[in-house]
Amino acid sequence: MLKVIAQDFIKPEAIEIVLPLYRELVEKTRQEELCISYELFIDQKDPGHFVFIEEWPDKAALDAHCNTGHFKRLVPMINAYQRQDCIITLIDAFA
Amino acid sequence: MLKVIAQDFIKPEAIEIVLPLYRELVEKTRQEELCISYELFIDQKDPGHFVFIEEWPDKAALDAHCNTGHFKRLVPMINAYQRQDCIITLIDAFA
Repeated sequence: MLKVIAQDFIKPEAIEIVLPLYRELVEKTRQEELCISYELFIDQKDPGHFVFIEEWPDKAALDAHCNTGHFKRLVPMINAYQRQDCIITLIDAFA
Repeated sequence: MLKVIAQDFIKPEAIEIVLPLYRELVEKTRQEELCISYELFIDQKDPGHFVFIEEWPDKAALDAHCNTGHFKRLVPMINAYQRQDCIITLIDAFA
């Protein structure tokens, strides 16, 4: 089991533009067969700071997700509005 | 419902020291009546980067957690070994 925290930082003026892109990304990703959990949150103190908490069976499933049509179409559209690079953290359960 | 991501950064030479402190913190916190979920993870690329994913009914419950005896005893013991300030992010569900 692999957990991922992916953090995006979007320019304030582009937040309204990315919201429907995120909505579609979440919807389509949850339909992937190997997706265990794919939740999107927004930082209470920063409306341009988007935080995904994801769960995949393994790294191969995460890689497959990053190769889907919806990922390859939507993520570059979102990233065009980044104000800084996203932070992807792969984490293992403690004890 | 409130979700929290809390990230600690511990000095490499102190990791073995903090592990039992984290273990006790997780164990005691999960016994708190208002705790919905309290999970601890470790960054696959950085064994000193500890990531909590927490769920509380509201901010008052989180504040109560930060005022428990175990929190006030264990967290300063852990923080003594920090290599940088922890990052606490309160997040709301997107859509």
